[in-house]
Amino acid sequence: MTTLASTIRNGVDTQQMFGTLDAIGAQPELGAFTFRATNQWLNGAHNRSTIKGFFGAGGEDTTRTEAFLLDAGEPAVLLGTDTGPNPAEYLLHALAACLTTTLVYSASARKVRLTEVSSTFEGDMDVRGCLGIDDAFRNGFTQIRATFHIKGDAPAEKLRAIVENAQKRSAVYDMVRNGVPISIEAVAE
Amino acid sequence: MTTLASTIRNGVDTQQMFGTLDAIGAQPELGAFTFRATNQWLNGAHNRSTIKGFFGAGGEDTTRTEAFLLDAGEPAVLLGTDTGPNPAEYLLHALAACLTTTLVYSASARKVRLTEVSSTFEGDMDVRGCLGIDDAFRNGFTQIRATFHIKGDAPAEKLRAIVENAQKRSAVYDMVRNGVPISIEAVAE
Repeated sequence: MTTLASTIRNGVDTQQMFGTLDAIGAQPELGAFTFRATNQWLNGAHNRSTIKGFFGAGGEDTTRTEAFLLDAGEPAVLLGTDTGPNPAEYLLHALAACLTTTLVYSASARKVRLTEVSSTFEGDMDVRGCLGIDDAFRNGFTQIRATFHIKGDAPAEKLRAIVENAQKRSAVYDMVRNGVPISIEAVAE
Repeated sequence: MTTLASTIRNGVDTQQMFGTLDAIGAQPELGAFTFRATNQWLNGAHNRSTIKGFFGAGGEDTTRTEAFLLDAGEPAVLLGTDTGPNPAEYLLHALAACLTTTLVYSASARKVRLTEVSSTFEGDMDVRGCLGIDDAFRNGFTQIRATFHIKGDAPAEKLRAIVENAQKRSAVYDMVRNGVPISIEAVAE
């Protein structure tokens, strides 16, 4: 129990974490991952993604026995029937979740025990862009703002540094902040 | 019934759609939207976003009676317990969902009846970036690839043009392709 207590911090097995870092450091090809989502249009603004398989750590993952299903929608004011969060809201969730997990992993590596991490994210858009009414407006958010509340057994300055560091390591923060090349093929039948 | 049949196309009420476009064109302040997500860390890589309220069309939305809850996680190989899709997978879903809805709205406006829209998205990352093993790698995806399959009552060329047009109008495509300014505040207690 003593060993267990010292290894698991914030629900993260730090022994496994350092083992993973060492393994990838020694065999860099283990670091290559490909994630996937398959989406099916259902009706109107209602569509559903299926997420299950991914490639990583040298092979195709076989540990997930069931797929995750995610339903998207739009509220009535944006011509949907509210069958799920809308895509822009999903993007805010992806960003919040990634920064939070990065932050928790970072705190665990630094031997900080967290008692609370919560955050609010908001993004502003003028839909005159994406609705094609006025090209002066971009389609997406012009700005995203977030506030994190973090508590743990470290000085406030160190806790704020952990939030700061998460921005330097978060995969989704990097993508939403800096953009990603996207190539799309269309097969029409 | 005749009126109804001619107004609703692909599950989208095109009369409402053109009415919305006219209303925002006449009163541009109706176009300002702010979307939100509130995230709570639960344990390890498990965190949950709550999505309900948003500002738009001149006021705070009151039509959503219940919140959407989204659980994020990581698979074991990335130190989680698979409590949900991981944040990068959520980003792929957000992108797929937004392009799909944009495409369906665009087809509806162009009087094209769709019978199928499905897509697969994948993104590549070397986790040596986000794990802090090697700064030569970015944290996020280096590349996202997608394939759309689209069927409907229009020539293949027109269907492919609809997929093309969706990229010019999708909010999430714009954000993931081009990036968004993000400001983050940390409150440590």
